[in-house]
Amino acid sequence: MQDGDLGKLHRLLIDFRDRRSWRRFHTPKDLAMSVSIESAELLELFQWKSDADIQSVAKDPSFVAEAASEIADVLIYLTLLAGELGIDPIEAAIAKTAENEERFPEA
Amino acid sequence: MQDGDLGKLHRLLIDFRDRRSWRRFHTPKDLAMSVSIESAELLELFQWKSDADIQSVAKDPSFVAEAASEIADVLIYLTLLAGELGIDPIEAAIAKTAENEERFPEA
Amino acid sequence: MQDGDLGKLHRLLIDFRDRRSWRRFHTPKDLAMSVSIESAELLELFQWKSDADIQSVAKDPSFVAEAASEIADVLIYLTLLAGELGIDPIEAAIAKTAENEERFPEA
Amino acid sequence: MQDGDLGKLHRLLIDFRDRRSWRRFHTPKDLAMSVSIESAELLELFQWKSDADIQSVAKDPSFVAEAASEIADVLIYLTLLAGELGIDPIEAAIAKTAENEERFPEA
Repeated sequence: MQDGDLGKLHRLLIDFRDRRSWRRFHTPKDLAMSVSIESAELLELFQWKSDADIQSVAKDPSFVAEAASEIADVLIYLTLLAGELGIDPIEAAIAKTAENEERFPEA
Repeated sequence: MQDGDLGKLHRLLIDFRDRRSWRRFHTPKDLAMSVSIESAELLELFQWKSDADIQSVAKDPSFVAEAASEIADVLIYLTLLAGELGIDPIEAAIAKTAENEERFPEA
Repeated sequence: MQDGDLGKLHRLLIDFRDRRSWRRFHTPKDLAMSVSIESAELLELFQWKSDADIQSVAKDPSFVAEAASEIADVLIYLTLLAGELGIDPIEAAIAKTAENEERFPEA
Repeated sequence: MQDGDLGKLHRLLIDFRDRRSWRRFHTPKDLAMSVSIESAELLELFQWKSDADIQSVAKDPSFVAEAASEIADVLIYLTLLAGELGIDPIEAAIAKTAENEERFPEA
């Protein structure tokens, strides 16, 4: 991973993991499952709410704190999985956006 | 979002979105759905594969390219959702890791 | 839905829902989100476990009870969503299996 | 599984699987992943659509056929997973609904 913001987060996560000897649990398959599980916890915050309800709760600091905590969990496992596969997520997202420029021409 | 790597990606995505007038589709609910949908496409790459199979395909550049493309999609929608809610994902992940240090003491 | 086992469950769920006036929350979109959210809770039971770990917990009645509870939640929302769209899930699964017979010929 | 509609589907699926020698792939973990992956494909049908859009496409036979196909896939993997764990999904859903009667009293 490049030596920017996400690179720093990645080093922090690796250090956290290794001080607990958790690498043996972190197979790519389990990390990919974790990304999905945490994404569903994020999705749950929006369940049974209309777009108007969401506009309203989005102003509530406790809702935003919960959303930040779930977004954090998705990013944590996504970064750990990317690290196992030698992928830089931000570089990949920039490359994908360049591809999307071709796939979806402006009207 | 802070003015680092993810901040740059966020500006790129906003520019991409706005040149296509797609913001009207990007409700927080739909963006959260998209994070889950893309996470499942990432998970699908590991379906029906043993850990040994995965160790082997992880050396195959075409598998890594597919994984990079799905990781990119998760990060793209996560960044757009975070942007709608005024959340900085990397800052949130660092704060969550600090909380996890308390929740999961080293053995 | 046909008048069999799943038809009975569907009538039970509709009655449960209507005695609480919950139909207004049960848009197809929210029901589809619920299927995904409950599927992730089911998936979470298998997180960080090897196939050998799972063989072992699968004999533990409390694990099986948790799995039954999450399988129930997926089926409940799947049945409610199918009901909103006029689909019979078992009939659809039988038709899909017939298609799969064509798509995946025996070796 | 009881000898009703879902029991019949289960026998059909086991026969389909065994004629292809696919049981070795059908670990509980992979089946639980499959439930999540198929749920996300179902969710994708509702992505970027407002409730009004969905009311309109729900009248389109090709949309309903796609939804039936994805609902089928979720039910197929859910039934196979339940079978591996000795769980009857409809019985579990009826028991869960009885619990929900206690948890969520009528207003």
